[in-house]
Amino acid sequence: MTAHGVVETPVFMPVGTQGVVKAITPRDLIEVGASIILGNTYHLHLRPGDEMIHRHGGLHRFIGWERPILTDSGGYQVFSLAARRKLSEEGVEFQSHLDGSRHLLTPESAADIQLNLGSDIAMVLDECPALPAERETLERSIDLTARWARRAREHFLARQHRSEHGRGQLQFGIVQGGTDFGLREASARLTLEVGFDGYAIGGLSVGEPNDVMYKVIAHTAPLLPEGRPRYLMGVGTPLDLVEAVSAGVDMFDCVMPTRNARNGRLFTSQGIVNIKNARYTEDDRPLDPDCRCYTCRTFSRAYLRHLFVAREMTAGALNTLHNLCFYLDTMQRVRDAIAFGTFQKFREDFHRTFAARPMTA
Amino acid sequence: MTAHGVVETPVFMPVGTQGVVKAITPRDLIEVGASIILGNTYHLHLRPGDEMIHRHGGLHRFIGWERPILTDSGGYQVFSLAARRKLSEEGVEFQSHLDGSRHLLTPESAADIQLNLGSDIAMVLDECPALPAERETLERSIDLTARWARRAREHFLARQHRSEHGRGQLQFGIVQGGTDFGLREASARLTLEVGFDGYAIGGLSVGEPNDVMYKVIAHTAPLLPEGRPRYLMGVGTPLDLVEAVSAGVDMFDCVMPTRNARNGRLFTSQGIVNIKNARYTEDDRPLDPDCRCYTCRTFSRAYLRHLFVAREMTAGALNTLHNLCFYLDTMQRVRDAIAFGTFQKFREDFHRTFAARPMTA
Repeated sequence: MTAHGVVETPVFMPVGTQGVVKAITPRDLIEVGASIILGNTYHLHLRPGDEMIHRHGGLHRFIGWERPILTDSGGYQVFSLAARRKLSEEGVEFQSHLDGSRHLLTPESAADIQLNLGSDIAMVLDECPALPAERETLERSIDLTARWARRAREHFLARQHRSEHGRGQLQFGIVQGGTDFGLREASARLTLEVGFDGYAIGGLSVGEPNDVMYKVIAHTAPLLPEGRPRYLMGVGTPLDLVEAVSAGVDMFDCVMPTRNARNGRLFTSQGIVNIKNARYTEDDRPLDPDCRCYTCRTFSRAYLRHLFVAREMTAGALNTLHNLCFYLDTMQRVRDAIAFGTFQKFREDFHRTFAARPMTA
Repeated sequence: MTAHGVVETPVFMPVGTQGVVKAITPRDLIEVGASIILGNTYHLHLRPGDEMIHRHGGLHRFIGWERPILTDSGGYQVFSLAARRKLSEEGVEFQSHLDGSRHLLTPESAADIQLNLGSDIAMVLDECPALPAERETLERSIDLTARWARRAREHFLARQHRSEHGRGQLQFGIVQGGTDFGLREASARLTLEVGFDGYAIGGLSVGEPNDVMYKVIAHTAPLLPEGRPRYLMGVGTPLDLVEAVSAGVDMFDCVMPTRNARNGRLFTSQGIVNIKNARYTEDDRPLDPDCRCYTCRTFSRAYLRHLFVAREMTAGALNTLHNLCFYLDTMQRVRDAIAFGTFQKFREDFHRTFAARPMTA
């Protein structure tokens, strides 16, 4: 339950980096079944600015989206995107990738920015160390992240009830620790000591092998309280989602369905379709005969290939609509299977139908 | 009345260059009130190919658009876009702008391509001479266009009833003659002698002053039979449309609403809004408070500016939706005014509210 309505879990959150889920409108997001989206604090802070969005009634009103929004802390983008950054106990100083301007992101300012945005769920600022790293470096990073978490929580609790758009906002902590079980346990303990409305698993899907990631998820998720949402940040493929649900994860976000859509890589019930492939030139069939989306109901693979090859913007829009529909329908089927007590069977079937079979038709 | 339904006139046809009206889906086109769209024969012939579209059930089915389609002859693009071209009595030889491949477009092949596409209205191939030109050159051009028109008509009448997707297709002739009243009269006489289902005025809005264009339209439209559609090709601004309707024109197409939308130039009931302008940074109002479109119902100017400045594809989609809605609503208001016998008053009001007033708010 959030300030903008109930979110049924497990749930996938489409990513709206700059105040829009790329290539799709809010009404089309509703149609494909999105119940919550993610906004990137780093991007919105730099452009158009969280103060400006605050003046315009908060992020929901500004972007025309009435359902819940989760915002990240901006930390991940600062560590991966900003031009230069300087870490200190206080926070992280960085230069904007847009204009080189200097900014300081602290646990407190990250919380304030998200209160300005008025998202339903805010994330604490965490340090995202470059990997691979020495164990000692990672230990120091976890301790810093924990001290930041405490500062963020105290600041949030002092400010949240006075915020015009952030009243009712929830705040989630983030567990780091790379692929080391011991570090994950330490980070989980430190984060739980602070106490949050929900808990995220960060720092995965950053290059480690898939089976290692699955093991870390399976080890870490049960360390988090069952009564609170567990959010796996930035993951992943449809199969990753099903596996993580199996480990007890409730929430996901990833740019994969939207980014891949724009690059012509489409998820279907029969596997991946690379729509620019010449094999689809004369393919009169729908992209995914099992899909209910507008794209699959209306157009052939041959037409979608034509739009992609002709570099029409509409290719991005139709492909995005489909890929998100596939992700969101998959999560709906996961929820149904859980409700009917048939999740393990669903999981086995999904491995067989989606993952193992490359598109050959 | 066409093979795919009735078109109420006067009507504006959104331009679907490559088998899609750029940045908008068929269902959104329906929503904003498009009753007929235009397809570019030159582009579709080169990619994905009219034979391929024919195999896929014709253009309507291929692009997911069930309402009428008018296709041009390809001549305009050959004369303006193709890499090299060589004119002869037979037709025009040209090199594709995509891959340099050589093609020959003749009055007969232009008709055949359009029968393959299965459009509801086909245009004859005409010569579009580079302007300015000597009067003698223009006279020769009109005579060639008339000979081509006769060949196109004969070929069409022999083939049309045997065409799988082109049965019921109508064919329009094109009156050329630049800005010279005498040449326009000669071209109209020659085209009428052949006899078509409708008649177009071509070769305008190619750089001549606006008042000259209006005079040519006012002189030429009455030369065409009242009982047949009169189509003004490639024109123009909302004011141009209202003026041409006043002269008796029934049909229009132009890339202006869609192209301008992608460039952030938006038509509103109060004039032009250049959405990237800094004055809209904090503008919380709808783009056009008098507009019924999704964009105006949902988003502020500040948000539309943000999307444009952030180079989000969704900017193109939302702007296109609005600009087309403005054009199509204007034509609906023109039709209503004609039905109520108040067109002259509408025309005067439109001059006052739309054209004269630059956006200052």
